Amino acid sequence: MASKSTKGPSTLSSVNITFLGTASAQPSSTRNHSSLALRLGGDVWLFDCGEATQHQLQRSSVKMGRIKKVFITHTHGDHIFGLLPLMASCMNGAGGTVEGVDDMRMQAGEEREPLEIYGPLGTRAYIRNGLTYTHTILGSPYVVHEVRFPTDPATQDHTHLAAHSSEVPGRNIAQVDGVWPNIYEDPLVTVSVAPILHSVPCVGYVVTEKPVPGKMDPREYIPHLKRTGTPMSVMSQLQQGETVTLSDGTVLKGPGRRPGRKITILGDTYDPSPIAALAENSDILIHEATNAHLPGVDPDTKPGDSYESVEARTKSRGHSTPQMAGAFAMHIRARQLLLNHFSARYPGNDDVDDGARKTMEAIKALAAEKFTGEVVCARDLMSVDVHSSPP
Amino acid sequence: MASKSTKGPSTLSSVNITFLGTASAQPSSTRNHSSLALRLGGDVWLFDCGEATQHQLQRSSVKMGRIKKVFITHTHGDHIFGLLPLMASCMNGAGGTVEGVDDMRMQAGEEREPLEIYGPLGTRAYIRNGLTYTHTILGSPYVVHEVRFPTDPATQDHTHLAAHSSEVPGRNIAQVDGVWPNIYEDPLVTVSVAPILHSVPCVGYVVTEKPVPGKMDPREYIPHLKRTGTPMSVMSQLQQGETVTLSDGTVLKGPGRRPGRKITILGDTYDPSPIAALAENSDILIHEATNAHLPGVDPDTKPGDSYESVEARTKSRGHSTPQMAGAFAMHIRARQLLLNHFSARYPGNDDVDDGARKTMEAIKALAAEKFTGEVVCARDLMSVDVHSSPP
Repeated sequence: MASKSTKGPSTLSSVNITFLGTASAQPSSTRNHSSLALRLGGDVWLFDCGEATQHQLQRSSVKMGRIKKVFITHTHGDHIFGLLPLMASCMNGAGGTVEGVDDMRMQAGEEREPLEIYGPLGTRAYIRNGLTYTHTILGSPYVVHEVRFPTDPATQDHTHLAAHSSEVPGRNIAQVDGVWPNIYEDPLVTVSVAPILHSVPCVGYVVTEKPVPGKMDPREYIPHLKRTGTPMSVMSQLQQGETVTLSDGTVLKGPGRRPGRKITILGDTYDPSPIAALAENSDILIHEATNAHLPGVDPDTKPGDSYESVEARTKSRGHSTPQMAGAFAMHIRARQLLLNHFSARYPGNDDVDDGARKTMEAIKALAAEKFTGEVVCARDLMSVDVHSSPP
Repeated sequence: MASKSTKGPSTLSSVNITFLGTASAQPSSTRNHSSLALRLGGDVWLFDCGEATQHQLQRSSVKMGRIKKVFITHTHGDHIFGLLPLMASCMNGAGGTVEGVDDMRMQAGEEREPLEIYGPLGTRAYIRNGLTYTHTILGSPYVVHEVRFPTDPATQDHTHLAAHSSEVPGRNIAQVDGVWPNIYEDPLVTVSVAPILHSVPCVGYVVTEKPVPGKMDPREYIPHLKRTGTPMSVMSQLQQGETVTLSDGTVLKGPGRRPGRKITILGDTYDPSPIAALAENSDILIHEATNAHLPGVDPDTKPGDSYESVEARTKSRGHSTPQMAGAFAMHIRARQLLLNHFSARYPGNDDVDDGARKTMEAIKALAAEKFTGEVVCARDLMSVDVHSSPP
């Protein structure tokens, strides 16, 4: 997957989401800062990388060495403070050598594929400054592609510092009709990006698998192939949806391609409507639900609070309630809604603790008031396989 | 302690060291990145702050809200990547508000004491850039004082970025005779700093408690006070070592003051000799021991390795072996040697695991070959009370 080789597999063997951190600003004993791993076949793409993401990776089944791309939704610390230490660990970046001793990393890695990092303006400057002031030497290259808002400078790196020795020049990607379409594309998937509203520039990512071969019933084809003495290898052409004309003039048409899987991963937001068109019909929508009004469930519920007042307060901080997430999932006709980015007050051990389960069930129920599809409250290290939607 | 009030206690009630992270470059399941907390009475001073230090604080008995100062030995990532997220958490620094909503933090905190951060050149720039590019708003101020090497610029901030809105101008401290004496002083302690040799500019910190009242035997004084009708409150003057002349001309002299506790905390080093004079007679020396030659104990021991080859390799990377740490402890006549900054291959669960205990005992024995005082291999969350040396 995502390899430039033309010999790569023609479909994704599996698509999996593993939540590495589901907390909002503060980590708790059961939730770490924001990060999730999307596994596409053997490759790993990270979305956000809060502090201690590498520690969470160590606890998960996701292989750190498989990380090929990192997508940052916004540069708030709880979404990016783990990126530099992760790079140092993945890319052999710690330590150094004393004067007069060669550092082998200075020669190595030129030919390797760079780690690709995507994010809004400031992502490149943050990484470059952080690596430089910490004297970090990396054993392989990296590149930062920035999605630039219309109010951002169209060019330049947003810092006076010269590029880090391992930094490859990245693109500054301009908006087209309010979104950033196809910022990445390979034979199997595309990634498009759109703004979502938060207290700072923030985006959501839509990862779309390209159309996949349709279901094929061999019994429809094999008798024709046998009758005409056509080699069975033609079946693989048909499987790809191609049309084949047999020696007796019979025209066989493979099954039509079905839409691939579509996953929309949002950063923090109080209004994600600018991404609605891109995100339509997502198989999975990952949406934050920082705060909720849970009278009778959350003992810290303030006496004067109501659904309206909690929503107003949550929005004023740039965030969403479960109902807002549910409404957006409904609006884009998502198949499944995965909630994350919970306030530290909402425990993440609902798989083993009854009180936690009650709280998270209540949050789920609030989202379900607005959304008829499946709702799941994510917890750290939860793993979700993404299947194609039924035809 | 460390308060500007003249009403503070005249002695430190307790001095305690809690190791928050004892790993070198890479964290393992039993050791986190470098950090330790020095508790002086009720205040907490952090020394280094690797990634996930705030997570370690949550697991420890050290109160995050009590952190008054942070001392950085060098700006390698494994010693500083946890600082910005810690500041965000301690100083109410996460999140933000949407346009048109006031952020109360912008008005708050002006009158509060700034968090004081000390470190070599680049510490200020690292913090400023990191906070700025992550849009971090803090609820209280901070200041960065840098110890500048003779080859560093004597002034300026080492970055083009303007100061962060919560940053108070800090000092750039020049060396005096090769060290930075008394960079901090209050009625109870002083902090002096000296270079130690590593692959990048690196320092060690010497925290010295000021002389404390000597042991007083009340029986030496009370009969004289009673005889002359002197109020018993004079005892507290005597306890402070003062001289008091009684009404009958008798001169009473309180016990002489004893030296206070002295703690030397080193960063990474292959040769700490420039700090030797300052560190002399430390009650506690904290010294790294990144790599060791452990034939028969460490299964990863390379066939051709010897004590000499391991030491040469360790030094070439700017680090020390246990023997080097022991020799330095002996050289400065330290009372106790605490080893930290262990390679990820040396497990940190030696309190519960026999294999780990064997490894760490072997490392301790290597240091003890060169040092006759007590040697302790630190582990994460280990807590050590620092007592005055016996008279």
